[in-house]
Amino acid sequence: MSSLPIGIFDSGVGGLTVLRAVRKRLPHENVIYLGDTARVPYGMKSRGTIERYAVEDASFLARKGVKMLVIACNTISAMARERLKAEFDLPLLSVLGPGSRMAARVTRSGRIGVIATEATVESGAYERAIREASRDRKVEIFSRACPLFVPLVEEGETDSQIARLVAEQYLAPLREMLIDTLVLGCTHYPLLKSVIKSTIGATDGESVALVDSAEATAEETAQLLERHGLLNHPLETAELAEPTNAGASRFYVTDAAGRFHRIAERILEEPLDHLEAVEIWGNDKLKPE
Amino acid sequence: MSSLPIGIFDSGVGGLTVLRAVRKRLPHENVIYLGDTARVPYGMKSRGTIERYAVEDASFLARKGVKMLVIACNTISAMARERLKAEFDLPLLSVLGPGSRMAARVTRSGRIGVIATEATVESGAYERAIREASRDRKVEIFSRACPLFVPLVEEGETDSQIARLVAEQYLAPLREMLIDTLVLGCTHYPLLKSVIKSTIGATDGESVALVDSAEATAEETAQLLERHGLLNHPLETAELAEPTNAGASRFYVTDAAGRFHRIAERILEEPLDHLEAVEIWGNDKLKPE
Repeated sequence: MSSLPIGIFDSGVGGLTVLRAVRKRLPHENVIYLGDTARVPYGMKSRGTIERYAVEDASFLARKGVKMLVIACNTISAMARERLKAEFDLPLLSVLGPGSRMAARVTRSGRIGVIATEATVESGAYERAIREASRDRKVEIFSRACPLFVPLVEEGETDSQIARLVAEQYLAPLREMLIDTLVLGCTHYPLLKSVIKSTIGATDGESVALVDSAEATAEETAQLLERHGLLNHPLETAELAEPTNAGASRFYVTDAAGRFHRIAERILEEPLDHLEAVEIWGNDKLKPE
Repeated sequence: MSSLPIGIFDSGVGGLTVLRAVRKRLPHENVIYLGDTARVPYGMKSRGTIERYAVEDASFLARKGVKMLVIACNTISAMARERLKAEFDLPLLSVLGPGSRMAARVTRSGRIGVIATEATVESGAYERAIREASRDRKVEIFSRACPLFVPLVEEGETDSQIARLVAEQYLAPLREMLIDTLVLGCTHYPLLKSVIKSTIGATDGESVALVDSAEATAEETAQLLERHGLLNHPLETAELAEPTNAGASRFYVTDAAGRFHRIAERILEEPLDHLEAVEIWGNDKLKPE
């Protein structure tokens, strides 16, 4: 069991920031990544559609024999986590929980900003999770949908004048709320980190802390695997200085593998060994006879 | 036959600019509109995926009994028109032809700009169609993909500082080419017309002419119906001053009808009588027994 891969999925490339953090934290794990690029983006679609797509994504990974599921997409976490939990008999972790718990730990003033897609903000899932993680402590949460951030990242506009202007428009109201912590509540947003950091600036002389849920998720993935006895430990031998079982990553997309390949290598800063375009939803006409 | 509806389809709300022009030109026609909002946008997806989605869109309209198909999406026109022509036995018009013919008529200098999605620009379909429409006349065509324009329109950012800055970045290189005509090669772009107009400015003291293919398409729709003897003529009687058969519009979407409703009423400037969310692609689990 422990040598089986971890299944990580997202609507597109955003979840690669989570994969990158998991690979760094757990270098001996095998990982399968699915990006539903034929139907990206999810962030402005309805709950029913997002749930259906999420079940199809997770079913694909389950058929590939993964040992756990990581929902590397805040929109899916907010809209479809409960449905996935009910339908799949696998350990399940979503980025929303770890990010919320980290925000509750990091804030000093209790004034926390959350930026995310429209669907995630409207669900109120971050506010509930941060309040739960803060227990009795009083927190004030200011949420803001940033619908153009995903297209900016998908188009590679991560450090341009356009990116800075869009960030200014979205973040100025949060800056005025004197937050000391800002949750990047969408896995695409860490790719805009430098623009976001310079735009949100500082409160009371201290830089606003950015919570990147990718790292928090990688840490909780390690804990969850440990708890289930599913960690893939390095094979160490007296003869070899380095363990021999470095983990491998395989990538699947539902459309346009070439475009994904370009963006993925930029995010991961390493070549992709295995990338394949697949069908994940039922279509009679396309099924083999 | 002639009282059957015209079927108009697009990946989302963009094609409503075509519907608006068709309704204005042909007020007695009944119209059915399909927006594939569950899978929007198409513009950065692959040919295979766009073809498949387009066939599913057109099949839905064919089942509804339309008398002709209008492809109100330049990406579908560029990538899937031939496939649709081969698969459907219905008169078919796409926005790309009328827009190209109008550009060839309008230009004085023969220097024409085309702005469109990534997929449309990469296909080279506009360049081919404009050259064909220009016959022996020498034209120079300058194409530019504007990938952030569709998300801007979908987010309602049509007259903001962000819209102006994005337009400046995309259009400055075309301005330098001293074009006298600019084709809005995506049905979303007419909604950014005022920003595009002020950004592209004038060449040699004359405003650059913007070609909005919606109007050209409405005109050619009228001609095509006339040619096929399919026009729905007004019923005029001696007793009534006004004809009694004003056409009706019905709208179908594949997701998030509420969001579509909001945007559609803004674009059409009239209430939507009939809006319905539908399934258009095969999924065994969702089919009735």
